[in-house]
Amino acid sequence: MVEVSTSDGTYDVVVRAGALAELPSLIVERLTCEKYAVISDDNVAPVHGRAVREACLEAGLDTSLFTFPAGESSKTRRSWSILTDELLEAGFGRDSCVIAVGGGVTTDLAGFVAATFLRGVPVVQVPTSYLAMIDASVGGKTGVDVEAGKNLVGAFHPPRLVLADPEVLTTLPFPERAQGLVEAFKHGAILDRAYFDRLRADVGDLMAADAAIAGPAVARSVELKAKVVSEDEFEGGYRQILNFGHTLGHAIEAASDYHLGHGSAVALGMLLETDLGERLGVTEAGTRERLQPALEELLGPLDQVSYDADAAVGYLRTDKKVRRGKPRVVLLRSLGEVDPGSGWSHEVSQSQLAETLAAGRGVAS
Amino acid sequence: MVEVSTSDGTYDVVVRAGALAELPSLIVERLTCEKYAVISDDNVAPVHGRAVREACLEAGLDTSLFTFPAGESSKTRRSWSILTDELLEAGFGRDSCVIAVGGGVTTDLAGFVAATFLRGVPVVQVPTSYLAMIDASVGGKTGVDVEAGKNLVGAFHPPRLVLADPEVLTTLPFPERAQGLVEAFKHGAILDRAYFDRLRADVGDLMAADAAIAGPAVARSVELKAKVVSEDEFEGGYRQILNFGHTLGHAIEAASDYHLGHGSAVALGMLLETDLGERLGVTEAGTRERLQPALEELLGPLDQVSYDADAAVGYLRTDKKVRRGKPRVVLLRSLGEVDPGSGWSHEVSQSQLAETLAAGRGVAS
Repeated sequence: MVEVSTSDGTYDVVVRAGALAELPSLIVERLTCEKYAVISDDNVAPVHGRAVREACLEAGLDTSLFTFPAGESSKTRRSWSILTDELLEAGFGRDSCVIAVGGGVTTDLAGFVAATFLRGVPVVQVPTSYLAMIDASVGGKTGVDVEAGKNLVGAFHPPRLVLADPEVLTTLPFPERAQGLVEAFKHGAILDRAYFDRLRADVGDLMAADAAIAGPAVARSVELKAKVVSEDEFEGGYRQILNFGHTLGHAIEAASDYHLGHGSAVALGMLLETDLGERLGVTEAGTRERLQPALEELLGPLDQVSYDADAAVGYLRTDKKVRRGKPRVVLLRSLGEVDPGSGWSHEVSQSQLAETLAAGRGVAS
Repeated sequence: MVEVSTSDGTYDVVVRAGALAELPSLIVERLTCEKYAVISDDNVAPVHGRAVREACLEAGLDTSLFTFPAGESSKTRRSWSILTDELLEAGFGRDSCVIAVGGGVTTDLAGFVAATFLRGVPVVQVPTSYLAMIDASVGGKTGVDVEAGKNLVGAFHPPRLVLADPEVLTTLPFPERAQGLVEAFKHGAILDRAYFDRLRADVGDLMAADAAIAGPAVARSVELKAKVVSEDEFEGGYRQILNFGHTLGHAIEAASDYHLGHGSAVALGMLLETDLGERLGVTEAGTRERLQPALEELLGPLDQVSYDADAAVGYLRTDKKVRRGKPRVVLLRSLGEVDPGSGWSHEVSQSQLAETLAAGRGVAS
């Protein structure tokens, strides 16, 4: 069990094989709500959402299941409005709790419903994908996409409990396993070289979703992320290190119109930002050479992934999240360690980023 | 200047005649944002919104004005979406600040835009009505109405600064002055009998919006509310005392389909909840007799205000906010003091509320 501190107190992240069966008792230990709303997409609802609802009902919790169409295209203000209205219609009040069961879209969307329902009700996060377990359910970020970009509307709403049961990972399609594990490698790259090396050695078992291997890996990533988030809940400074690979990764992902997987885009972003760091003399020479083969075992040859460098540059120019109009990147000092820079990131010029993207393996498409 | 503590730190509420002219310098002392968005409705924008924008521009702050149609009918998820998209379109990023200039609809709506814009950017509240100065801009409540009811979607998002300049009250229509001052009387009724008596003595000058009288009254109400909110930011317990008059007041307001003013409805709610308290032996006998003439000086004869008691009872039965399905009311011990009850409110039965409503001056319409 990992404990995460927030300004509202602390919450537990339980990572344990078979823990899903304990969910009702873990909830009862922490919350005394009148009604519980399980929110799942229509893929996960039949597999896990209904089971969670039934287990909660058996434990005497007044629990209903609410579903929405699976996919990133559901992560919208519209889905959020519909779910909110359905909860109101079903008589949910202040003494309600949302239980999000699913991948990152679900944890973000259901989390935002909880964050804004009657100005906020508790949320329990039950991530069912590697990405959601490792990344989306820790840190309290919730939100939806809008036309101008992804995750531009949302709230920080720390969960009251996160339950990650690695046994459910066997229901996850293989490409999603690989895409999600990229974030684990990122955690190793920025904070723990030994963890990075272990992930690389265990990559076969991780892809097979062997709970005995996946459990400790998820727990280590959660521990690392929780430590960062506890030190900087609202993303003022240190938390930025989690953005390693994401400045260029997001640009590449957006340039592909989100056809390239998030994990693949972040993997490319990590390699390119490491190129830049090495060129600037910030990152130890040879770091990219250590990163690349590990990521390629997961994703296949990354040199063959083409992206539209011009479109990525265009995205960076208009990125709504860019601080003070100037791009910043997180750079490694070496594998397993971030360079502190100024406020844990480095200001770089648009042209340096453009050169880095052009010098990468990108082929203008 | 009143200081309010929140889990995010503290913020100042500046109440001073002429303070509006100091807004840019007060902002610069507290914030270093890249861009500022003044949000006003289309009534207030020409009077105060544009002036605030120009003053900020003169002080070197990159400031734009965004407007929406005046009225409670604009306090919707749709207006929130439109304003959010307009900010994104205009290139607002993480380093942005929202300046809400207007009445309660504006402070709630613009506050919710700020609360959810890129997961939250700072908001400066510049209330221009009595109600917004006294009530809406302190406490961090933001949100919008949905079909199922008012304020059912929102977030707690404490402002970084609240500036209330009583000189702007002269632009407020007289009925809104009276409606807003009801909340000041409520503050006196629950916390400070001397303040209640002073409000009653000064009611003429308050209605005339004489800044020399209105300023200290606004400041005292802000001080009282700020003290309550500081002790209980997220509405778990003590903060409930601010709901005095609101359980039945909201029901009466909803039963009128919001044709009855909020202040009039709350005034009736205070009288009826005091009736109930006296009948239960919780409230000192004769308290209603002290409350009524003061409220009537403001609003005219309250016995002649009819409401649909049956519809109000129906509203209470389906109220989404009712805790654990059972209604709770805040009861006075005497004028100027709340009875602690259990958790600062008393559980009552639906039938006790129905009787209270029926025994009031309501005429089934």
